[in-house]
Amino acid sequence: MDLAQRIRDSFDRQSLMATLEARLTAIAPGAVEITAPILPGVRQQQGHAHAALSFALGDTAAGYAALTVLPEDMEVVTSEIKIHLLAPGRGEQVLARGRVVRPGRRLVIVTADVFALRDGQEHHIALLTGTMVPVPASG
Amino acid sequence: MDLAQRIRDSFDRQSLMATLEARLTAIAPGAVEITAPILPGVRQQQGHAHAALSFALGDTAAGYAALTVLPEDMEVVTSEIKIHLLAPGRGEQVLARGRVVRPGRRLVIVTADVFALRDGQEHHIALLTGTMVPVPASG
Amino acid sequence: MDLAQRIRDSFDRQSLMATLEARLTAIAPGAVEITAPILPGVRQQQGHAHAALSFALGDTAAGYAALTVLPEDMEVVTSEIKIHLLAPGRGEQVLARGRVVRPGRRLVIVTADVFALRDGQEHHIALLTGTMVPVPASG
Amino acid sequence: MDLAQRIRDSFDRQSLMATLEARLTAIAPGAVEITAPILPGVRQQQGHAHAALSFALGDTAAGYAALTVLPEDMEVVTSEIKIHLLAPGRGEQVLARGRVVRPGRRLVIVTADVFALRDGQEHHIALLTGTMVPVPASG
Repeated sequence: MDLAQRIRDSFDRQSLMATLEARLTAIAPGAVEITAPILPGVRQQQGHAHAALSFALGDTAAGYAALTVLPEDMEVVTSEIKIHLLAPGRGEQVLARGRVVRPGRRLVIVTADVFALRDGQEHHIALLTGTMVPVPASG
Repeated sequence: MDLAQRIRDSFDRQSLMATLEARLTAIAPGAVEITAPILPGVRQQQGHAHAALSFALGDTAAGYAALTVLPEDMEVVTSEIKIHLLAPGRGEQVLARGRVVRPGRRLVIVTADVFALRDGQEHHIALLTGTMVPVPASG
Repeated sequence: MDLAQRIRDSFDRQSLMATLEARLTAIAPGAVEITAPILPGVRQQQGHAHAALSFALGDTAAGYAALTVLPEDMEVVTSEIKIHLLAPGRGEQVLARGRVVRPGRRLVIVTADVFALRDGQEHHIALLTGTMVPVPASG
Repeated sequence: MDLAQRIRDSFDRQSLMATLEARLTAIAPGAVEITAPILPGVRQQQGHAHAALSFALGDTAAGYAALTVLPEDMEVVTSEIKIHLLAPGRGEQVLARGRVVRPGRRLVIVTADVFALRDGQEHHIALLTGTMVPVPASG
């Protein structure tokens, strides 16, 4: 099974991604993009996208970016992530681009940039850096 | 309006908390607890609670913990948070306890511990540390 | 060779610890303490202890705390650490207490609290959380 | 007094920078570079540059990068920084490039990349992201 299909299958098993109506919008070696609407049910008290939406998309995009640099029989789990919230999540959609900074057999260091799409423009709203741990695929 | 009521009102305006069926289960000076079920729609690919659920509850509990140490006319926004995922989110519920480490006029440093409730026991599944920024209340 | 002696030997090979005149002041299972003076040559522009001193002691104390929970033939390397600077490093000495939050074969999650000793009192000046990676001992 | 001179004056007041024999090797709007030798006295137990050296240079380069985007009467203090250690610090020198990710009146979000210079090549050994807080200049 090819890599993009393995990522799509794994993504489809994450029920949170369906709840968020998130979609895989790009898959390349070392880089994955996920896009989701800012639904009425994912907001904070000022009506903007909740930080947890940026976290969910950034974490997932970064995790699948890590998967693209691993052998076929591996999955990844997130060990830790730091997220900087740079600006309010105002707009119609949120888009996360995950990227591998340093591949490794034991650890994969990743980053993700998260953007709000508003009036046709990308606004940088969050920056994540984290550590993904390769584990044997359970399936 | 008293502090607990202000926190409850703000919490009720966060649509993500309703989506997650999260509840404020304790409010004390410098410490807030939030509890939510692990719903079918908040899971990762192995069927456990998604890291974003721990993040959402931990971030929110820590933010309201910060609010308890601020003047009445202030809100907080999250500037940055790091989350360590310590164990899989297996169980019936997830519970986050936020706490103020260092109050301040310009920044409030916070931490949160997240637990999965499984078979009547608390299992430590995540640790967060972060920075909350006081801002004038918009309402 | 017993654990405390292994830690002391490793500590003595870290030339930075000698430069900082740092000393191992407590070793227990899962917890290590390191103390150093605030020398004239380790200061920032206001004359207080540089953040890098708190980082150096906190990182090292946390790393050796991790070592106490590993098999005898292992060392650790730091993968990542976040440090919150809570207050200026004013005083005569700086003291770091490292602690294991979650042991593991592949990763050890650690924390450290750093204090300035001033007028006989401990002032909490920094909080670290990080990830240590066990590796086979090179010696 | 011009910006580069203010940064040089502040840098010269940091005794740790003199101890490390660090030098300001580039100053531009939003970006500052610092370089230091890997002295015999700044090493960890395997003889490579201690993580605290990468931290010291990265933190300082990022802080001065933040200063370049602030009004003349302001200084910055580090609130928090996360460092990922990507590879051993082997080589003759270490070089840190700090950069502003998001300027702000209350907070400046920064990043720094740290490189070991070995055999005439730059090797990426650390990645930092952090939060700088503008404060009124004390002088």
